[in-house]
Amino acid sequence: MVEPYRFSVTESAERIRDGRLTPTELVESLLSRIAELEPRLDAWVTVDTEGALKSAKTLTREAAARNLRGPLHGIPVGIKDIFNTKGLRTTMGSPLFSNYVPESDARIVERLREAGAIILGKTETTEFAYLDPAPTKNPWNIEYTPGGSSSGSAAAVASRMCPLAFGTQTGGSITRPASFCGVPAIKPTHGLLSNEGVYPQSWTLDHIGFMARSVGDLSTTLQALTGMESMKPMRKPRIGLPATYFNEVGAADVIRNYSETAEKLRRNGANVVELELPESFRVVHPSHRIIMFAEAAAVHESKFRESPSSYRPNIQGEVYSGLIIPSSTYLRAQRIRGIFRREMLSAMYGIDALLTPATITPPLKGLTSTGDAAFNVPWSFTGLPTVNIPSGLNEEGLPLGVQLIGRPYGEVSLLGVASWCEKVLHFTVEPPLD
Amino acid sequence: MVEPYRFSVTESAERIRDGRLTPTELVESLLSRIAELEPRLDAWVTVDTEGALKSAKTLTREAAARNLRGPLHGIPVGIKDIFNTKGLRTTMGSPLFSNYVPESDARIVERLREAGAIILGKTETTEFAYLDPAPTKNPWNIEYTPGGSSSGSAAAVASRMCPLAFGTQTGGSITRPASFCGVPAIKPTHGLLSNEGVYPQSWTLDHIGFMARSVGDLSTTLQALTGMESMKPMRKPRIGLPATYFNEVGAADVIRNYSETAEKLRRNGANVVELELPESFRVVHPSHRIIMFAEAAAVHESKFRESPSSYRPNIQGEVYSGLIIPSSTYLRAQRIRGIFRREMLSAMYGIDALLTPATITPPLKGLTSTGDAAFNVPWSFTGLPTVNIPSGLNEEGLPLGVQLIGRPYGEVSLLGVASWCEKVLHFTVEPPLD
Repeated sequence: MVEPYRFSVTESAERIRDGRLTPTELVESLLSRIAELEPRLDAWVTVDTEGALKSAKTLTREAAARNLRGPLHGIPVGIKDIFNTKGLRTTMGSPLFSNYVPESDARIVERLREAGAIILGKTETTEFAYLDPAPTKNPWNIEYTPGGSSSGSAAAVASRMCPLAFGTQTGGSITRPASFCGVPAIKPTHGLLSNEGVYPQSWTLDHIGFMARSVGDLSTTLQALTGMESMKPMRKPRIGLPATYFNEVGAADVIRNYSETAEKLRRNGANVVELELPESFRVVHPSHRIIMFAEAAAVHESKFRESPSSYRPNIQGEVYSGLIIPSSTYLRAQRIRGIFRREMLSAMYGIDALLTPATITPPLKGLTSTGDAAFNVPWSFTGLPTVNIPSGLNEEGLPLGVQLIGRPYGEVSLLGVASWCEKVLHFTVEPPLD
Repeated sequence: MVEPYRFSVTESAERIRDGRLTPTELVESLLSRIAELEPRLDAWVTVDTEGALKSAKTLTREAAARNLRGPLHGIPVGIKDIFNTKGLRTTMGSPLFSNYVPESDARIVERLREAGAIILGKTETTEFAYLDPAPTKNPWNIEYTPGGSSSGSAAAVASRMCPLAFGTQTGGSITRPASFCGVPAIKPTHGLLSNEGVYPQSWTLDHIGFMARSVGDLSTTLQALTGMESMKPMRKPRIGLPATYFNEVGAADVIRNYSETAEKLRRNGANVVELELPESFRVVHPSHRIIMFAEAAAVHESKFRESPSSYRPNIQGEVYSGLIIPSSTYLRAQRIRGIFRREMLSAMYGIDALLTPATITPPLKGLTSTGDAAFNVPWSFTGLPTVNIPSGLNEEGLPLGVQLIGRPYGEVSLLGVASWCEKVLHFTVEPPLD
C-alpha cells in the first residue's frame, strides 16, 4: 500500500473527494514524513502541527458530508516564510521579524484556504528572499544547496514532506530551487497571483509561484486560484531555442543535458526551431539588478538605517548599492525593460514556448551560495510565465532541469506544452532518502 | 451676420453637416482672425496656412457629397508644439528642436484627423512644457501672462483664433492657462488620451487635454476621440468643497470669487458640502515635485549632459535637481502617490465632484513667470480628471476660474456637473480685442 505522503495534489484530491482518503490521514502521514526527514533537511521554519490537524479534522468532517470547499479540499501546503499567515509566526528569514505574528493572511493564503487547502507550515527562505542562505539542504545530497530563495518549499516538495509549496521569485528564486531539487514549478505572469501580504523585495519584479510533483498539479492549483481554464497537453508544440547566450555560458553538464533534452523533444514530434534573441538582451541583467537594488533599498531603507548590522552580508550589499542609485538610472532601467519586453515578444512570434536550461550550473556544493539566477532573470524582468521541468541527473546524481517560457497570461497554453514535454522526458527518479 | 471664427466646435460642426458652412470658409475666417491678432498675441509657433487650406478643400468636397469623416469634420484645431505632426515642424519650445520635422503624427493628432479635424497650426509652449515662458500674451491684457505651459493653445482659443486647441499637463499646464485666459478646458484621467508621439516631461504625470469655448464642446471632442457616451447636464449635483488648504493659501480675489461661485451654485440647487482632505494631502506637493524632477532628468539626461547651456534656467534647474534624486526617494514618492490616490477617492465618497479655485493667483503681470500650479498638482498627481470653468473677472478685468475634480474615468459625469455649473455661472464676457 502506498503511503499518503507520496500522493500528488491530484491523487489526494481525487481520493478525498471519493472518500478513500481523509484530510486527517493525509496530514498525519505528512507529519510523520516531516518528523523523519526534517532533522536532515531543515526545510521548515515552523510546522503548524496543531493548526494543520485542527483544519484537517474540520475538512474531514465536511468531506464525509460531501461538502467540499473547493478543488484543493484537504490538500496540505507549505508556505514560504515571507507570506503572512494569520496567527502563525512569519519571520522573513530575518532576526528583525523573529517574533512577528501577522494579524491576517496574505491574499494568496486566504485564497488557498477558501479552496480547501491546509496550511501545513512555513518553509525556509533566504533572508528577505535575497541571497543569504537558509539552513536547508538539498534532498538529493545534503552537502549541496537546494538553491534559493524558496529553498524550503523546493526541498519539502522534493522530499515529499508536502505535495505543494509556495514561493516567490524576483530573480530566479522559484525556478532555481525547483530545478536544483528536481521538481516541477511555475512562475506565472507578473501580477497574476496577488502579492498582497507577501514581504516585498522589489515590487515590480516580485512574482508569486509554486512547486508540485507534476505539471498536472501545477495546472490544478493554478486553476483553483485563478479560475483559468483547464490545461490540455499540446500535440507537436513549436519550441524555440535561443541561438546565443545560454549555450555559451552554461556549465558543461547543464548544456549537455539541455541539448539531449531538445533532441529528445524533436525526435518525439516537437517542431524545434532556433530563435534570435533581441539586441536588448545584452543589457537585461544589469538593468534587472538596478531595478532590484533600487526597489529593495526603498523597501528596507528606514529599518536598514536604524540597524544595518541586523542584515546579513548579501542583502546589506544590495541595500547599500540600491541607496546610491540615482532615480534617472533606475528609470532608464525601467525603460529598457519596456523595450526588451516588446522585442522579446516579437522574437517569440510563431512559437508556443521558448526552451532554455533552467539554471546556469548544476546544484552547487556547500551551503554558502544558493547559486546564480542568470538564466531566470530575463523572465522575471519581462514578467513572462515560466515552468521548470526536471530533465535528468548529472554525474554526481544531482537534478538538472529545463525552463519553458510562454506569453503574458499564456499559462494555459504554456502548461499544455510543459505537460507534453514532461511526458516525453519522463523524469521519475527520486532523491535517495529512504 | 456672425463671422465663422466666432462659432464653437458644436456650432461649426452642425453648420458643416447641414451645408450652411464649408470647412474652407471656416479656415479662411480663422486665418484672417489670426492675421489680425497674432502680431499682438504670439500664440502660434507655426500656422499651417497651406496645409489647412488643402485639408479644408478636401473636407469641403466630402461634406458637399454628404461624406463626413467623423464628428469633427472640418473643425480646425490648434496643437501644442510638443505633439508630433507629420511633415510639420515641431519645436518642443527648444532650440534643440528648432528644425525638427516629425515623420509621423502623434497618436492623438492621428485620431483628430480620422475624426475629420483640420490641423490649423502649432501653438506656443514653454520650453519642453516646463516653466520657461513662451512669448505668448494674455488676450485679456497683453501685459499679463496667459499661463503655461500650454500658453498658445489657451490664448488662441480665448481670442477665437481657433475653436479648439490641445495641450498637456504635468503640474497645472492645461488648467492654469485655461483659467488665466478664461476658457473651459478638460484634463481627462491620466492615460485616457494617448501620449504617444508627445514629447514627455514626466511620463507618469503627463496628461493630454484640450480647451474649447464651452463644456458642450469639451464633451463633443472627448466623445469623438474616445467613443465615450454623451454627457448630460446633471441636476442638483453634490459638490464637495475642501475644508482646508485652498482657502488658506489662495490670493484674496481668487478666494472671494470662489466663495461667491460656491454660494451661487448652492442657491441654484447644488448640494454643496464640506470635505476633509486626507492626511496625506500634506506631502502631495513635494512628492509630485520629486517624481516630476526625477522623470524629467531621465528624459533629458543624455542631451542635457552634452549641452546644458541649450536649456533655459527653469528646466536646467529641474534636470540638475532630478539627476541627484536617489531612486529610493523617487520610489517613496511613488508610494505616497498610491496612498494619496486611495485616501482621496475615499474622501470623495458621496459627492459628484470636488470644487476648488482653478489657480492660486489671478493672471500675473509680466511675462517672466507663467504662474504657480499648486492647485492643479494634486490632480495631476492622482491622475483624476478635472474641468476648468471661467467664473468671473477680478478688479483688473482678468479672468478667474474654478476647477471641478471627478473620479477616475468619470469624465461623462464630471462633464455633466460642469455643464450644469457653466449654465449657472453664465460667463459670457469676452477679451477686449476688437
